[in-house]
Amino acid sequence: MTPPPADLLITGCTALTHGPRGEIVFVDDAVIAVRDGRIASLSSEATGSETGGETGSGSETAARPVAVEHIDGRGCAALPGLINCHTHTPMVALRGLAEDLPAHAWFNDWIWPVESNLTARVIELGARLACAEMIRGGVTTFADHYFAMDTVADVTAECGLRALLGQAYFTSQGPEGRAASLDFALRRRGTAGGRVTTCLAPHAPYTVDDADLAATADLARQHGLPVHIHAAENREQTDNSLARHGHTPVEVLARAGLLDEGVDLLIAHATGLDTARDLPVLRRARGRVAVASAPRGYLKFGWDTTPVRALREAGIPVGLATDGAASNNTLDVWESMTLTALTQKHTERDPTWLTARQALDHATLQSACAVGLGREVGSLAEGLRADIILVDLSGPHTQPVHDLAATLVHSARSFDVRDTIVDGRVLMRDREPLTVDVPGVVRELNALLPALVDRSHGKRIQEYEG
Amino acid sequence: MTPPPADLLITGCTALTHGPRGEIVFVDDAVIAVRDGRIASLSSEATGSETGGETGSGSETAARPVAVEHIDGRGCAALPGLINCHTHTPMVALRGLAEDLPAHAWFNDWIWPVESNLTARVIELGARLACAEMIRGGVTTFADHYFAMDTVADVTAECGLRALLGQAYFTSQGPEGRAASLDFALRRRGTAGGRVTTCLAPHAPYTVDDADLAATADLARQHGLPVHIHAAENREQTDNSLARHGHTPVEVLARAGLLDEGVDLLIAHATGLDTARDLPVLRRARGRVAVASAPRGYLKFGWDTTPVRALREAGIPVGLATDGAASNNTLDVWESMTLTALTQKHTERDPTWLTARQALDHATLQSACAVGLGREVGSLAEGLRADIILVDLSGPHTQPVHDLAATLVHSARSFDVRDTIVDGRVLMRDREPLTVDVPGVVRELNALLPALVDRSHGKRIQEYEG
Repeated sequence: MTPPPADLLITGCTALTHGPRGEIVFVDDAVIAVRDGRIASLSSEATGSETGGETGSGSETAARPVAVEHIDGRGCAALPGLINCHTHTPMVALRGLAEDLPAHAWFNDWIWPVESNLTARVIELGARLACAEMIRGGVTTFADHYFAMDTVADVTAECGLRALLGQAYFTSQGPEGRAASLDFALRRRGTAGGRVTTCLAPHAPYTVDDADLAATADLARQHGLPVHIHAAENREQTDNSLARHGHTPVEVLARAGLLDEGVDLLIAHATGLDTARDLPVLRRARGRVAVASAPRGYLKFGWDTTPVRALREAGIPVGLATDGAASNNTLDVWESMTLTALTQKHTERDPTWLTARQALDHATLQSACAVGLGREVGSLAEGLRADIILVDLSGPHTQPVHDLAATLVHSARSFDVRDTIVDGRVLMRDREPLTVDVPGVVRELNALLPALVDRSHGKRIQEYEG
Repeated sequence: MTPPPADLLITGCTALTHGPRGEIVFVDDAVIAVRDGRIASLSSEATGSETGGETGSGSETAARPVAVEHIDGRGCAALPGLINCHTHTPMVALRGLAEDLPAHAWFNDWIWPVESNLTARVIELGARLACAEMIRGGVTTFADHYFAMDTVADVTAECGLRALLGQAYFTSQGPEGRAASLDFALRRRGTAGGRVTTCLAPHAPYTVDDADLAATADLARQHGLPVHIHAAENREQTDNSLARHGHTPVEVLARAGLLDEGVDLLIAHATGLDTARDLPVLRRARGRVAVASAPRGYLKFGWDTTPVRALREAGIPVGLATDGAASNNTLDVWESMTLTALTQKHTERDPTWLTARQALDHATLQSACAVGLGREVGSLAEGLRADIILVDLSGPHTQPVHDLAATLVHSARSFDVRDTIVDGRVLMRDREPLTVDVPGVVRELNALLPALVDRSHGKRIQEYEG
């Protein structure tokens, strides 16, 4: 029986796929057929090998699936779309505003005063610009932890990306903060054609008290919602936590029930883990807890980086992230992949550790797992969502290719992403984002900047004590 | 009197210039006129301020210089072309060949065996691909330290870049190595319309013995040639040097006379400096010695990075570099600038150190000084060579611009370079390199790869003992 025509056919590329043990397998001369937003088949015209079920194998002359839309992927690598496991999209409005500062001054003198000026319109424009940047950089899914999440959900729906969204709260907001986070999560869960998933988003153990964390754990279990939180962002926070109440931030989370059965927890940063105390705690929650690592910011603030090797050995997935652009300056997850490889080699003083293939594993399977979408995205395989990027390898900086994994991790850059596809819909074609009007957003945002950066009011949304 | 028409006029950009104390000054709405390969004038249409001598000041309606060629720089920043202070261009042929290895295995099992297969044609193609990559990335000058330098000089002449070239030698080659380096330096000095300068290029204190180094110092003084050498590449080399003969690599150079009056010395890497012993030695040679730093490779090999802060305090210029693509995977000097900022903050555990403006200083004045061209390039000022790049800031990842220095160092990327100009000649326009046939080079190079990577002969050009 002839299958119905595919919606989209990608041909001629080398596809990054995963073998039965999760190992990376490159498939040459791949043909990827997409139907109803999912990968219908992935086969090779080079060898006739096939992971999907319906396409003819064999040479160029064998019948390819018929398709409505075709992308010629010759000279490109096809990868699962990148996943930004922790960001604050609207903060792109503050990109580069507060530079070369320690964390205390960055929060208290700049970011938290300026955030008290944020308007709904600036948040919307910031989120839209962030989505454009991510689409350009091959990001197809992002986990956002911020305020005004309804706006971000609207922008996500409109621009076509996939997102795990959580409305942030501090205990200083009273129980209303937590209630608003729950309300958002329940209202928006599964919207945008299923592309929006939601979570509860307490800010951090140093801004959300134990009772509030425990109540969060109860709500998470009760409603089947994951929790996304900052914790052990740096060593100083861990030391302060130990001095204040004798527990590390991870132990605080555990005592609140956030590492118990029935709660999926995504921890942002975790560069300040007390590995001797915290790893056994995390290991007991294996399968329910993951970490998001944003290595650029750790370099910039002069912090240690996430202990990826120890987490990997403990079986805890580590996904890649950029944090917000106010600290990180970019939402470039490709750079996060490269910097994860480089900083891991450096911090472990071991050039053989975190190979290019391991970096690609963090960028694909581990990141998908971290945002709770391990069964939907993160790999190019039949039945998964068609979140696909095509990376042009014809530039002089990516030639010759002796080892495609090394080329991708250490030579290619986010700007080599040529096409970005989510749920089978092309969001960028030939480097042109199709769902965001970048010049229009930039023009309006620039007009709003003077009011945004005014700090003469002396207010701030919180006090940073770490 | 009306001046003759300019050869090239760039308008509407924001120009990175230097104030009287070397501080970075951005000039809005700049007009840069180029004549006979030099910057004839640089003025602002926004303020009427002017650093050049001939253009009319004032508004858009005031008379601009007449020019043969015009580049509309609106939405762009104009910077001095980047300078790659230490690389091995032909090694792009080995990009990604030997990954995730320690230095010993990298040299002895891979690079030095494969280098014994290098042919003149592979070197030529590698150099050409490297030049294309650098032109694409906004590099206008490079310092190359390798073999077959006549070929590299030919490629430099043909593709329009500026270069400081040195023919490498080991003592294992006998006195012929040094003689060939001198011969090359004298024959090629000042060629390619003055764009090629030359130097002597002993490989390193661990491969060139004391007598050979002393003879090099004599030749350098006698012929007015600078010297470019690897030294103190990592801490292990310094420890081995101390164990072998009681002197650090820098002390070995000093004892050979390479830090004496009359010799200009460019040291690659210097991550293994013994700061207590070496800095006083270097400080005494201030004005004659500089360091090239390639931070990506240090992360990748798990080494310390160059002690930029200590060198800066000692008055030693530190230029930016990429090393060869066989270890570094890219010739992306923009990335070196970004990584210098990030790794310096991290290694000093000080987020306020190596500000974005300091990073730009390393990328401009200090790099020009490091390659001995401080009076010719490295700044946009009347009378200097017209080595200019235009960087497109309209992308979503570089907006909004709160602080242009931060935008350039932390948000912009090499791929934002839109136009590359050397000596007033446009080598890339609208991201299209004009002087290298990239597809042709890639096609031919790929056909030669199987013979290149064959290691069955068991030979290597040297033994690495560090």
